Amino acid sequence: MGWKPVTKVAATAGNAEGATPLNAFDNALLAAGIGNINLVKISSIIPPEAQVVPLPRIKPGAIVPTAYAAMTSEVPGEVIAAAVGWALPEGSGRNGIIMEFHDKATRDEAERTVVQMLEEAFRVRGWRIREMNVAAVEHQVDRTGCAVAAVTLLSDDDLA
Amino acid sequence: MGWKPVTKVAATAGNAEGATPLNAFDNALLAAGIGNINLVKISSIIPPEAQVVPLPRIKPGAIVPTAYAAMTSEVPGEVIAAAVGWALPEGSGRNGIIMEFHDKATRDEAERTVVQMLEEAFRVRGWRIREMNVAAVEHQVDRTGCAVAAVTLLSDDDLA
Amino acid sequence: MGWKPVTKVAATAGNAEGATPLNAFDNALLAAGIGNINLVKISSIIPPEAQVVPLPRIKPGAIVPTAYAAMTSEVPGEVIAAAVGWALPEGSGRNGIIMEFHDKATRDEAERTVVQMLEEAFRVRGWRIREMNVAAVEHQVDRTGCAVAAVTLLSDDDLA
Repeated sequence: MGWKPVTKVAATAGNAEGATPLNAFDNALLAAGIGNINLVKISSIIPPEAQVVPLPRIKPGAIVPTAYAAMTSEVPGEVIAAAVGWALPEGSGRNGIIMEFHDKATRDEAERTVVQMLEEAFRVRGWRIREMNVAAVEHQVDRTGCAVAAVTLLSDDDLA
Repeated sequence: MGWKPVTKVAATAGNAEGATPLNAFDNALLAAGIGNINLVKISSIIPPEAQVVPLPRIKPGAIVPTAYAAMTSEVPGEVIAAAVGWALPEGSGRNGIIMEFHDKATRDEAERTVVQMLEEAFRVRGWRIREMNVAAVEHQVDRTGCAVAAVTLLSDDDLA
Repeated sequence: MGWKPVTKVAATAGNAEGATPLNAFDNALLAAGIGNINLVKISSIIPPEAQVVPLPRIKPGAIVPTAYAAMTSEVPGEVIAAAVGWALPEGSGRNGIIMEFHDKATRDEAERTVVQMLEEAFRVRGWRIREMNVAAVEHQVDRTGCAVAAVTLLSDDDLA
């Protein structure tokens, strides 16, 4: 693996308005506490040895593999949601799995969908879920809004 | 380069159904033998020193730069395809090139298109192709299906 | 951070025609001087310690975190543009910010939009801009065209 070892995994979510869709995304990342780092999109596995922790302070500019869902809308009044869920398996040496969801939806709907996706991902692998969590957020659009949910994969060097 | 050196390059393809588009993608990755690693999408170069090998076993959770094409459909009966092709140049010190294709198409159509894309990529560079290969797959959708084809860039540390 | 330290940041832009949208993208990257490296898309921060430089020669196949905007079109006569802007903050220890824009638009429109996006990004952070630049390009489509603009994050190992 080209990266330093991933030792910690942390989830977060945030929502915001912005002058443009990309600014709304930037502002939602700031609200989620990950606005000043570089996200590299991954699909979407928690390494076996990683530990799930609350979001720590991360060095500005760190390049962080991240599974994330983002939903942007410019339709006033629309309710949008983003969710990430992660589940860890029973047994050792097996990876965890992350699922993402974003849509015109409520937070509840996003959470339920992510849970179902995780359950299928474990069912097809023949694994049992030891622990499951979801980070989700909804946003009612004023003019240009964004909801984002993310699971960051962190190495010790990324921590501020 | 921030990654450990890429020493091996391996292609694969797979297809599957799933309860949601993301689960179908996850299941297609499992079918392709890369369902338990983190894919980081790249565009789309084989380093000069890398060796093309059959897909090895990769450590769960490894973070792997990957050129991939994925096509998901929820239209029953539809035929979808994904293909990746790669070509290596004559002469030394030059990189190889990867091209991706996904669409409502057959495997044959996907393969032909990727070959044409590679030929243009070499023509515009003024290089000659020493070796060319394609990994492709088609899928006829039952309810929610996905076809995926990928070229993974591996370092020695990624191997299980 | 899993990558080698980012020491240099360089922007570029290019445009081209191609036989397919992906070939047009490949050709636009070649025109921009980054056609033989692997781009890994990031969102979109300049590490505090990095220095902005003219685009250096980069090793073929290097895996380079890059913030980029790309616009492809198959509508003859259409004018498309891509722009990246970056701004560095007053004060020390703070990261710079990159914004991307692509659309059916002129180069001027793309540049103006990116500047506004950067200004908002600094306003919401409560930071002042010390230095701001934009790399942008427009392309009038003949058959299949692409405009691309990119900010590459480079480590010393990436340089040829």
